[in-house]
Amino acid sequence: MQGKKSYQKLAGFRDFSSKGAYLKLELIKRLRGVFESYGFLPIETPHLEYAKVLISQVDEKADGAEGADGTEADKQIYRFFDHGKRDVALRFDHTLPLARYVAQYFYDIPIPFKRYVVGNVFRGESPQAGRYREFTQCDFDFVGINKPEVDAEVLQVIYHSLMALGIKDFVIKINHRYLLDCLIKKLGIIEKKSKLLQITDKLDKIGHEKVLEQLISLEVLKIAEAKRWLSFIEQKIDNPASLKSLVKDSFGDVEGLDEVYNDIERVYSILDAVGIDDSKYIIDLKVVRGLDYYTGMVYETFLGGDKKLGAICSGGRYDNLIGKFSGQELSGAGASIGLDRLLSFVEHDVLAHKIKAPCQLLIAILDDESLLFAYKWADDIRKKGINVEVYPKRAKLAKQFKYAQKKKFLYLLACGENEREGGEPVLADLNTGEKIKFSDIKALVDGLQGRLDELER
Amino acid sequence: MQGKKSYQKLAGFRDFSSKGAYLKLELIKRLRGVFESYGFLPIETPHLEYAKVLISQVDEKADGAEGADGTEADKQIYRFFDHGKRDVALRFDHTLPLARYVAQYFYDIPIPFKRYVVGNVFRGESPQAGRYREFTQCDFDFVGINKPEVDAEVLQVIYHSLMALGIKDFVIKINHRYLLDCLIKKLGIIEKKSKLLQITDKLDKIGHEKVLEQLISLEVLKIAEAKRWLSFIEQKIDNPASLKSLVKDSFGDVEGLDEVYNDIERVYSILDAVGIDDSKYIIDLKVVRGLDYYTGMVYETFLGGDKKLGAICSGGRYDNLIGKFSGQELSGAGASIGLDRLLSFVEHDVLAHKIKAPCQLLIAILDDESLLFAYKWADDIRKKGINVEVYPKRAKLAKQFKYAQKKKFLYLLACGENEREGGEPVLADLNTGEKIKFSDIKALVDGLQGRLDELER
Repeated sequence: MQGKKSYQKLAGFRDFSSKGAYLKLELIKRLRGVFESYGFLPIETPHLEYAKVLISQVDEKADGAEGADGTEADKQIYRFFDHGKRDVALRFDHTLPLARYVAQYFYDIPIPFKRYVVGNVFRGESPQAGRYREFTQCDFDFVGINKPEVDAEVLQVIYHSLMALGIKDFVIKINHRYLLDCLIKKLGIIEKKSKLLQITDKLDKIGHEKVLEQLISLEVLKIAEAKRWLSFIEQKIDNPASLKSLVKDSFGDVEGLDEVYNDIERVYSILDAVGIDDSKYIIDLKVVRGLDYYTGMVYETFLGGDKKLGAICSGGRYDNLIGKFSGQELSGAGASIGLDRLLSFVEHDVLAHKIKAPCQLLIAILDDESLLFAYKWADDIRKKGINVEVYPKRAKLAKQFKYAQKKKFLYLLACGENEREGGEPVLADLNTGEKIKFSDIKALVDGLQGRLDELER
Repeated sequence: MQGKKSYQKLAGFRDFSSKGAYLKLELIKRLRGVFESYGFLPIETPHLEYAKVLISQVDEKADGAEGADGTEADKQIYRFFDHGKRDVALRFDHTLPLARYVAQYFYDIPIPFKRYVVGNVFRGESPQAGRYREFTQCDFDFVGINKPEVDAEVLQVIYHSLMALGIKDFVIKINHRYLLDCLIKKLGIIEKKSKLLQITDKLDKIGHEKVLEQLISLEVLKIAEAKRWLSFIEQKIDNPASLKSLVKDSFGDVEGLDEVYNDIERVYSILDAVGIDDSKYIIDLKVVRGLDYYTGMVYETFLGGDKKLGAICSGGRYDNLIGKFSGQELSGAGASIGLDRLLSFVEHDVLAHKIKAPCQLLIAILDDESLLFAYKWADDIRKKGINVEVYPKRAKLAKQFKYAQKKKFLYLLACGENEREGGEPVLADLNTGEKIKFSDIKALVDGLQGRLDELER
């Protein structure tokens, strides 16, 4: 029997079954390991904030530059009045709560401030494939220093995070917002910047022709300019040197670009020094990043061959965001890993079987007298680091087998008169059907431990 | 500079600094280990649910038995209309979402269904010492089997959870709601049951005299009866046998108690078989548990000597709750660990220094040329499982030392011309001030690894 509709979960929200929830927790454990290995430490902020904290960014963009992202975020935010009539809202990202946190504790935190956070965010958008109204974001940010070394570190963490999840086929696309700013200035259309970038950002989604059409019909660029812009943006760029010559060829001398080239070259030299395979990162001028607050390098990571999934890890440098709360100039750079998207990928991938199976041994109960024995054995076996469940009552062996299979146990040990009286216990391998007889329980536990160690290697 | 008030966190909510958030994550890791070692698997449900899912329990108690808990929960719930005009609410516990989950996926889940969940719940109560409007609950529940073996397992998990957190001074108080039901029936005041239990539940908080006064003034019991009730309830009970004789002495023969005695004796024999120290659990008739949905054994855990903290882990058996959603009769038993309360205790306790320090080595940068070397070294050192942070730019050594101390690094390695050119590197122990010279970086890393291994042992 299914529950009534009003007793079901809300549309656009997700329940994670044991399999998904366990996988998610294991992935988070690996990500934490990578974040912490680079000196990022966790913080935790509430799911609820004053609405003003979350929408201030939008408010202050009422100069016409608000763009699709600002108003969209505003529309999507879960906002309401609490018991004390306070105007509150559920966080829709981790960056604004970070800005609020840095402002509130500025004199207590170390600067540079390197934090990660793993938690859920909420956006009331129309549910569609792969989009949810509540989802888990893993963010790491490096606040307080505006240097390409920081960007290089963020890129290293992205790289090692994905590798730690067993994902090997991916590419991190890099761009520089200030490069685009300079070029747009050179084109003489700085007042149309937001519109130009928003439309350009759609290249991957709606394609070259439609973007061209929009650029012209929305009067951002004239036909020839629009074509030149797109053909420039869409060029393949092999390395920082070729970027330089391409810009020179297309735009001649452009003011302000030395900084951009220095940033990119420095990032390349660091990534090279730490041995990151150069097929894993590439300069791609199409990577614009919707959000207005980016000011420096931006990055988006895509899985090889799986275009539908979109970017699984994005970020960049934002120079002015934190300061809006703290009053201080604090540049930040960081990235956000969308765990739910990754989960759907990893579930079908190689990683799964390298994760420790949570259900290792079920002790099946053949008669009432065996229960106490089973509990005692289970307690001893747990002390060896093995997960053991005791079926909590006598039942038909077939029923207990079925339970073990449904819950994906690796092994089963039936406990009845024979085992109680010191007869030879039998370990059933639930994957192969193999049955292994041991001289006694101690030998069985040793054998089981060896087999589990083998699996985890 | 501090941010403006409207840019601060909401009152009654918490920010966790790196120290607190890291400790919390480490505690959760240990709890997960215990839960999984008994066959409990994680699930995840949304923070938001249809309000009806969360308040249905309250609605259905409109027979006058609603009591303080029901109406309180109702008042405290964060409830609002979403973009689609749905009546939604933030969860205030994990039990009602569990009931909804079991109903919705009844044919997909294994029965018995053993799940744990670690997540935040929300209650808009007046903030006071140790009470927050958002807090983390770690619940584990065992659904589908109504046998004392299940209660015994819940108690084992409570015991091992606290031990895993390094907490050794605690006692689990056990009672049986059905025992109280039978006694109240015998007293002939079953229609006053809810009131009697609610007032009795306050014994620890407001004391004997005030409870006695309320029982009389609210006309639950007459003076002599009230005194008899309290003196019975407050007796020290050494074991199941003494419970039996105390009941006999106070109430004579009472119908229905065989089941209660069997449950308690069975639990005692299992806890004894698995070697749980019998000073860690005790029968205490004062443990009533506010919530109306408990029907069988109930448990509350208290830390020794720290009465102010209240119960840190409570639970019990509920026979009718899940069925309200699923239509099926499904008994459940489980407990909930209040992580925030525990955290405040553990922070000042022995556990802290047994947890791996997240910040192990800071590489300080003495000149610009050293950065690339430092990044390369850091990358090599991380491969040995050591957490390393590189200070991202040249700065005064004193400044970098201060940063290392603020972030509680264990060691610091300064990198300048000497180290770059193959001179002997020096490892500074930031706790002792000791400086250890090594022949080269490789030797330093080996030495560091040995020292870190020592710390974790």
